[in-house]
Amino acid sequence: MKALKPDTIAPPFAAYSHGIDVTAKRLVATSGQLGLAADGSIPEGAEAQADICLANIDAILAEAGLDRANIIRLNAFVTGREHMAGYMAARDRYLEGLPVLPASTLVIVSGFTCPEFVVEIEVLAAENA
Amino acid sequence: MKALKPDTIAPPFAAYSHGIDVTAKRLVATSGQLGLAADGSIPEGAEAQADICLANIDAILAEAGLDRANIIRLNAFVTGREHMAGYMAARDRYLEGLPVLPASTLVIVSGFTCPEFVVEIEVLAAENA
Amino acid sequence: MKALKPDTIAPPFAAYSHGIDVTAKRLVATSGQLGLAADGSIPEGAEAQADICLANIDAILAEAGLDRANIIRLNAFVTGREHMAGYMAARDRYLEGLPVLPASTLVIVSGFTCPEFVVEIEVLAAENA
Repeated sequence: MKALKPDTIAPPFAAYSHGIDVTAKRLVATSGQLGLAADGSIPEGAEAQADICLANIDAILAEAGLDRANIIRLNAFVTGREHMAGYMAARDRYLEGLPVLPASTLVIVSGFTCPEFVVEIEVLAAENA
Repeated sequence: MKALKPDTIAPPFAAYSHGIDVTAKRLVATSGQLGLAADGSIPEGAEAQADICLANIDAILAEAGLDRANIIRLNAFVTGREHMAGYMAARDRYLEGLPVLPASTLVIVSGFTCPEFVVEIEVLAAENA
Repeated sequence: MKALKPDTIAPPFAAYSHGIDVTAKRLVATSGQLGLAADGSIPEGAEAQADICLANIDAILAEAGLDRANIIRLNAFVTGREHMAGYMAARDRYLEGLPVLPASTLVIVSGFTCPEFVVEIEVLAAENA
């Protein structure tokens, strides 16, 4: 897995790669994860919810014998610009120390299945050939 | 194609998998499909429109010799929470009986190419190696 | 890479394919690109911003030795229906002359990292086996 970071374009806004090049042996696609805690509660704030989404993604990847280092792209949706900082803080912590940072797309949308959710995250991951 | 359903996280809200693990020989990506009927009309309601989107996806997959059992992930967008139930009813019917349910992401957005459309669906599918 | 265009469904609204079938040797996923010019300015209008997004995508693909002919799917988000025409004009120009047109999904969302941005584009690309 190789990061694509052409120096002719502005560097990424945060800790992600502009692109990822991978010779994929296996692919893992996750569903969009929401901030539903194990006890059924929904914590307030994008950061706490994103922490749950990302922990879920770890658990899903682990079922396939993979981990966060295998993520090609994170696609995140938040319900308002005020939730971006919290999501980005959770994402930065999640990706910290990875040798190759995944690609990342972040979009503000109108909502998810329940009004309490302020962030949803899905990933595409790959095992290198 | 294997469903990833870690028991440490809440089960899916509906009939989909938290993640899919696939050794892909071929990939098929569809464009976002809209609820445009063959006669050029746009039926009212998310369920009727989603039925068309999903029938289109079947037709596209069939061109590649694949079918709905090859779908890795469904990405759906609806224009309001009131359209979720209709979309989910169509999706549940569409996925009924599949041995492995695809991953699924559902987001509320502001709209599509024409104001009459209330749902848009794209899929990523794969033929197993 | 093969275009999937079943004749049982309405033809694409514009210059894209309903689906793409590819035996992928390598995959490239880009981050969502925004209309930030090299000098740090953000031009007005979806068309000018989309031109920058697509030039960035070319640069990212080039780092992997690929080009726009390798794009499987373009996923674009605009912040209003009034920005669709500008985005589509940029996309049509970008895809002109390609032997196989990629799949394409276009959705109206609420916004991106900065309010000045009106369009965001990501792609999934593949090198044929």
